[in-house]
Amino acid sequence: MQLAKSLQAIKPSYIREILSVANSADVISLAGGLPDGDHFPLALMEQSILQLSSRAELFQYGNTAGYAPLLAYFHECYQLSDAQDALVCTGSQQGLDLIARAFLDAGDKVVMEAPSYLGALQVFGLAQASIESIQQREDGPDLQELEQCFANKTIKMFYAVPDFHNPTGVCWSLDVRKKVAQLCQQYNVALIEDAPYRELRFSGTELPLVSSFCPEHAIVLRSYSKIATPGIRLGLASGPKAWISALERVKQGADLHSSQPMQAVLLDLLQHADFPKHLDGLRQLYRQRYQYLADLLTAQLPANCQFESVEGGMFIWLSLPVGCHVDRLAKDMLEVGVAVVPSSVFYQSAEGTKPAFRLNFTNACDSDLALAVSRLVQVLASVK
Amino acid sequence: MQLAKSLQAIKPSYIREILSVANSADVISLAGGLPDGDHFPLALMEQSILQLSSRAELFQYGNTAGYAPLLAYFHECYQLSDAQDALVCTGSQQGLDLIARAFLDAGDKVVMEAPSYLGALQVFGLAQASIESIQQREDGPDLQELEQCFANKTIKMFYAVPDFHNPTGVCWSLDVRKKVAQLCQQYNVALIEDAPYRELRFSGTELPLVSSFCPEHAIVLRSYSKIATPGIRLGLASGPKAWISALERVKQGADLHSSQPMQAVLLDLLQHADFPKHLDGLRQLYRQRYQYLADLLTAQLPANCQFESVEGGMFIWLSLPVGCHVDRLAKDMLEVGVAVVPSSVFYQSAEGTKPAFRLNFTNACDSDLALAVSRLVQVLASVK
Repeated sequence: MQLAKSLQAIKPSYIREILSVANSADVISLAGGLPDGDHFPLALMEQSILQLSSRAELFQYGNTAGYAPLLAYFHECYQLSDAQDALVCTGSQQGLDLIARAFLDAGDKVVMEAPSYLGALQVFGLAQASIESIQQREDGPDLQELEQCFANKTIKMFYAVPDFHNPTGVCWSLDVRKKVAQLCQQYNVALIEDAPYRELRFSGTELPLVSSFCPEHAIVLRSYSKIATPGIRLGLASGPKAWISALERVKQGADLHSSQPMQAVLLDLLQHADFPKHLDGLRQLYRQRYQYLADLLTAQLPANCQFESVEGGMFIWLSLPVGCHVDRLAKDMLEVGVAVVPSSVFYQSAEGTKPAFRLNFTNACDSDLALAVSRLVQVLASVK
Repeated sequence: MQLAKSLQAIKPSYIREILSVANSADVISLAGGLPDGDHFPLALMEQSILQLSSRAELFQYGNTAGYAPLLAYFHECYQLSDAQDALVCTGSQQGLDLIARAFLDAGDKVVMEAPSYLGALQVFGLAQASIESIQQREDGPDLQELEQCFANKTIKMFYAVPDFHNPTGVCWSLDVRKKVAQLCQQYNVALIEDAPYRELRFSGTELPLVSSFCPEHAIVLRSYSKIATPGIRLGLASGPKAWISALERVKQGADLHSSQPMQAVLLDLLQHADFPKHLDGLRQLYRQRYQYLADLLTAQLPANCQFESVEGGMFIWLSLPVGCHVDRLAKDMLEVGVAVVPSSVFYQSAEGTKPAFRLNFTNACDSDLALAVSRLVQVLASVK
């Protein structure tokens, strides 16, 4: 059977090749975006899990929008207005996919920062959208470039990760947030604010969601993979009622609804008295890991490799000398037993690609990080 | 934000209106396709559920194809050949959606029996496929019509529910199964064999899967909503390796993978020593319910309403007099406190629609069934 044209156009992902090797025991992986499995809040979930088998109603078909008590909690917790609604998704990845399917026709223009989240590139690729790339600065997207793009082209949506961007770790400044919201309003562009790392801030000051400045023009995607656990596959999309209703209609055909027992467990976890303490502990752990990796890199990196400090999230973006071949270097790294992701996979096109590695610091212990950096330095020494 | 053209083309579903009312306590619902919640195998799942919180690895990100031990079990249980593969889906509904997304371009022709499963109509509608309807006979699709269709048009796939069809309950004969398989091979049409009710046979003799006669031309969709529980949202797609690989690529963007804790619990359930006993009990329960409803209908129905007996599944298809207005009758039924689904929702177009009600018999107790039939008879008395 011949593939649909949309799928034919998707190139096989190099990152999957890397990740499949990265799982072998003798490879230190800084490649994935995995939270630390030793610090999942399973103890806080245990009571809820133990009660599941006596709650038969959770095992019946449920509402497409989500488990009602969980939705009620989200409405209150995120202070959704009467004009807004929320939809529980099978991971925030599904939220993004539903958005693309509900709103994008082939050829519709979607703006993204470059580099950008690989899963979003895949989703928009499948939707046959036309991607407009905007350069990313230290404090967010290049505003001039963004306004020019909004002004000169018919843009349907702007997909962004303003808090601790994947892959770069960049966090948008308050000024950039306000300006982007204003541009989205002015040019009638829907902002898709993907916020999976927002709760993983380990230094600096929390900033408002960009969408808080343009709630009638934005959908927020939240993930519970980082603060709860990824295996339960739960995320949330919230925004204007009409938009969420469209997502719900697509979700009905996509999977009817997300796992209800998992939704009930998530609700109990989020409401657990010790959950804030768990989050604090997680932030502290990731800050330590980040600081440890950053210190190692600062001390050992050759002068032609740099990175910007981050205030949260899961990644360090290590810029490499212009002209070096990042895919080959990533393979060299694999050969010395360290998996990293080369920047090439995060760009829509080769043009404008900056050579870099994405280094994850949340899922490796200190000794592995130290070993990884020593090998990294060894490989980078070969780069002119 | 303007909806995608594909979503604009989907008409709001009348069945959702009915189902939203059907949930109120003073309505007896024969409308849904719900398994009996009082007979979920929760006791058999309990040990597995209790152990979840000590199995941290289940809560980490997993493989898109599914939880490896569950996949291994499916390979053995369904005796998949070396040329075949399987993919765990977030419900078999997702399997169907992935198939449409991986293989269908707008305008591609999909053959379905008329009437057909509403969720499939939605999925193929979103994919902007062109539906070719084939009349259904007592023992399966009209073979002459099917062959003519395959011969004269370029058909990409044939979507079918050969075991206890939704909504009609029809089970294809062995001859029809062999002939359809042969036609799929001859005309290079992919068979999508949706088998959610296959294990719910409560009389007669089990017949081979249609795809067993054309394994290289078929994908089988299995559901665990009916034999385990729906709330966990797990299904399976199996078929030729290249086709399953295409589904996996789409699933990666759709939701990364299905809930791993739920997959582990399903595996333990399917392997539980008492699971076959649970299945036997379920079949016995549904046979009793079916027989009770069928006897009531036979005794009380006016002569201008008929139904064919079924050997399994969840539905009785009650044919109403030609020319009667089924939507209005379904509303009349709601007014006397009984929810049923009118046949109109199961047809792609008004043309060729036969007036009928779909009656579910798996989720109402005997006294509710008796009350529902007495009210049904009351409403049908008004039909000339």
